[in-house]
Amino acid sequence: MKTFFSVNDAGDIQTLVDTALMYKQHPLLHKAGGKDKRLGLLFLNPSLRTRISTQIAAANLGMDAIVFNVDKDGWRLEFEDDVVMNGTTVEHIKDAAPVLGQYFDILAVRSFPGLLSKQDDYSEQIIHQFAKHSGIPVLSLESATRHPLQSLADIVTMEEVLRAGTVKHRPKVVLTWAPHVKPLPQCVANSFAEWVIAWQHADFVIAHPEGMELDPKFTKGATIEYNQDKAIADADFIYVKNWSSVEPYGKLLEAKHDWMLTPERLSVTRNAGIMHCLPVRRNVELSGALLDSANSLVTRQAGNRVWSAQSVLAKMLGL
Amino acid sequence: MKTFFSVNDAGDIQTLVDTALMYKQHPLLHKAGGKDKRLGLLFLNPSLRTRISTQIAAANLGMDAIVFNVDKDGWRLEFEDDVVMNGTTVEHIKDAAPVLGQYFDILAVRSFPGLLSKQDDYSEQIIHQFAKHSGIPVLSLESATRHPLQSLADIVTMEEVLRAGTVKHRPKVVLTWAPHVKPLPQCVANSFAEWVIAWQHADFVIAHPEGMELDPKFTKGATIEYNQDKAIADADFIYVKNWSSVEPYGKLLEAKHDWMLTPERLSVTRNAGIMHCLPVRRNVELSGALLDSANSLVTRQAGNRVWSAQSVLAKMLGL
Amino acid sequence: MKTFFSVNDAGDIQTLVDTALMYKQHPLLHKAGGKDKRLGLLFLNPSLRTRISTQIAAANLGMDAIVFNVDKDGWRLEFEDDVVMNGTTVEHIKDAAPVLGQYFDILAVRSFPGLLSKQDDYSEQIIHQFAKHSGIPVLSLESATRHPLQSLADIVTMEEVLRAGTVKHRPKVVLTWAPHVKPLPQCVANSFAEWVIAWQHADFVIAHPEGMELDPKFTKGATIEYNQDKAIADADFIYVKNWSSVEPYGKLLEAKHDWMLTPERLSVTRNAGIMHCLPVRRNVELSGALLDSANSLVTRQAGNRVWSAQSVLAKMLGL
Repeated sequence: MKTFFSVNDAGDIQTLVDTALMYKQHPLLHKAGGKDKRLGLLFLNPSLRTRISTQIAAANLGMDAIVFNVDKDGWRLEFEDDVVMNGTTVEHIKDAAPVLGQYFDILAVRSFPGLLSKQDDYSEQIIHQFAKHSGIPVLSLESATRHPLQSLADIVTMEEVLRAGTVKHRPKVVLTWAPHVKPLPQCVANSFAEWVIAWQHADFVIAHPEGMELDPKFTKGATIEYNQDKAIADADFIYVKNWSSVEPYGKLLEAKHDWMLTPERLSVTRNAGIMHCLPVRRNVELSGALLDSANSLVTRQAGNRVWSAQSVLAKMLGL
Repeated sequence: MKTFFSVNDAGDIQTLVDTALMYKQHPLLHKAGGKDKRLGLLFLNPSLRTRISTQIAAANLGMDAIVFNVDKDGWRLEFEDDVVMNGTTVEHIKDAAPVLGQYFDILAVRSFPGLLSKQDDYSEQIIHQFAKHSGIPVLSLESATRHPLQSLADIVTMEEVLRAGTVKHRPKVVLTWAPHVKPLPQCVANSFAEWVIAWQHADFVIAHPEGMELDPKFTKGATIEYNQDKAIADADFIYVKNWSSVEPYGKLLEAKHDWMLTPERLSVTRNAGIMHCLPVRRNVELSGALLDSANSLVTRQAGNRVWSAQSVLAKMLGL
Repeated sequence: MKTFFSVNDAGDIQTLVDTALMYKQHPLLHKAGGKDKRLGLLFLNPSLRTRISTQIAAANLGMDAIVFNVDKDGWRLEFEDDVVMNGTTVEHIKDAAPVLGQYFDILAVRSFPGLLSKQDDYSEQIIHQFAKHSGIPVLSLESATRHPLQSLADIVTMEEVLRAGTVKHRPKVVLTWAPHVKPLPQCVANSFAEWVIAWQHADFVIAHPEGMELDPKFTKGATIEYNQDKAIADADFIYVKNWSSVEPYGKLLEAKHDWMLTPERLSVTRNAGIMHCLPVRRNVELSGALLDSANSLVTRQAGNRVWSAQSVLAKMLGL
């Protein structure tokens, strides 16, 4: 595995999921597997859960992890070819990435979208150019349009619930838009959609207000629904997430407060598990009562970030 | 030991002190004791000595330590129940803390007081809520009203001097207020007072200008003195520290430059050891000449931070 | 080796170079050599390559490395004696450094020049006072006037090329000034000059516009040339670097765009290897085409930072 940017890099999803759950039982099974291998964790944007869970995953495999937080303002990279760099960018990706390739065995990169130009963000040039110019395997810690380690942890969490046996039928999974106070990336929603669809183990519905359509390249195969109550009827899992509009790009449209789920609203579901990638704004995106209820899977999802990262790193190391 | 927030969590102080001094002689005695255990160090406020000494203590016990600096502005946590989070807080402690509980075996937290509301600060809600919601042992790296690892290191330092045998009598310990240029927390003073009182191995006097009284819950059992010369007479140890007023809360009152100790002022003492937690403003809080003199114990105190943290971590690990 | 600030601390340069190239072949040969030794990496200014390469070097020797980034504004140190610290400095070097000496076996410090006063910067008081007051070996990660780990890596890179055998004669090395958009320190240029001169294995020419003379204490023994084409004639290695004027101090003088090297300009050289310490502004300091060409040694130089740091750390550890 030379890159891990999207579900297309994942190979057999079920194998990754099984490996993750195996590591959850036996965290240190391959402690010798990454010995003397070095993981670079480059954060062009801040991170809490992603950084810690990936550091732990690396440590469980015996790898050395070196973190470097480089905010985009402090160390502004240039991505255009043949430009005269007399402005605000201080280093070209063609010079920076090969050096990182000298220092690390695997490079992990986080870089959020700017939400100013869909074309820029959806080209994913930052992560692609790190892969092209570093010469080593590159792992996404969330890029402009996707968050694959989160999505793998989400699938792992559903698989865990399914293995516990309370859901006897083919599960129904709903991804629903939720309100927020500021425009957010589409990454988590895009990524969750493409992973659930590729996983093929669930019926999949995406619910959002009209006008909040995700880019079709991520949602092909899903049922789109504008009525949230109808969408969540009989649901086994509901993934709650805000995203900004794709067209026009990156906007916070109407508030739509009635799209916030509460315990009462779950009555039409099959006692659905409630999922969210965190951080979550209580009583804006999701009611506090629901987050405090037994239906909430959010802490478990965050915990499973360790095992999903460990599963991917192990595959990159050839373990 | 599930929490280490105050002297009340310390159990037998002398045992902690003896263990610290034992680790000073044999730093790596329990190198295997914390193997595959993970310590999270969460800094909601900056740290230098505390971070490094705790990292070293963890390493000496074989623990993995992961540091995350999260300034309060960058990742503003919500602590109120049932609030609609449409403002500046981005994550609720009820969602954040359980995730950290998934990632770590022990969580260490630093969070300074706001110095705006005594009620808010003295409720210690931040550290208490981390303990309540994380589900794992929580260690204070300085909270709104106390700095227990510092106080333990301070006791360790005095014990070390006493064991060297130059003080043959029951020692006299004085905590004295000192001038400063900005209002500081009461943490170090509160904590030192409650630890020395609980330690019971010294006569204890607190000296400060009228109006600079500490909260009585920390000082019960100490002699309060408004005349600094009288207070330090025959002292064996003098702990120098500024704090802001408790009533009105968090204010920098008069300068009181004559409260700054100098070598000449020590003539009334029993060649007292001079203590300070650092950083210290020379010639404001304490004369440079005194800091450069043989009476100064400040570097030794800072060094002993390692052994006090190691003693507490070992107790939390059940070593 | 108690300090590593300049070529004068290096001892026999060729031994350091040979050791670096030996570690490049056998990175983990002395993995046990630094066991239970602790390296503190104190950054008063930001760092990417220097930090990572030094962390890797320490890990290769089995050392524990602890990084602390302390920007000068956040933790402003006082260096003057006997000052009343009622201003913006919060801690005196005489109090801070001894504490670091308690925590670490070796201390590495980065501190850039202010470029406001030549006398202040060229006194190198920051790094010297850390050495004086910490009581442990101190290593420069770039100080006000020098960047010795970079220069050692530069010599290592040239040695590597020479060992490959394509250059059969005594090599000609040229350090040439290049244009930039803002005033930069003289460190890399000063340091490269003194190292090449002390190395004694090359003819050495320094080219720059009139008025951009480096301080003579670094350049004694080099040929100074104001005509860049004449300087680079028959060159085997060309080190490209901007620096600000020394007299008047720290100024960005005329643009001198014609001093930017391009592939065409290399025709007068002996197919010279092009060197730069990175980061480089493409098409300002150096043409992108040259950086993308086979003549560029810049990635290799950055990679060799690991082995040069490892060689110096090993010498400090007495390995």
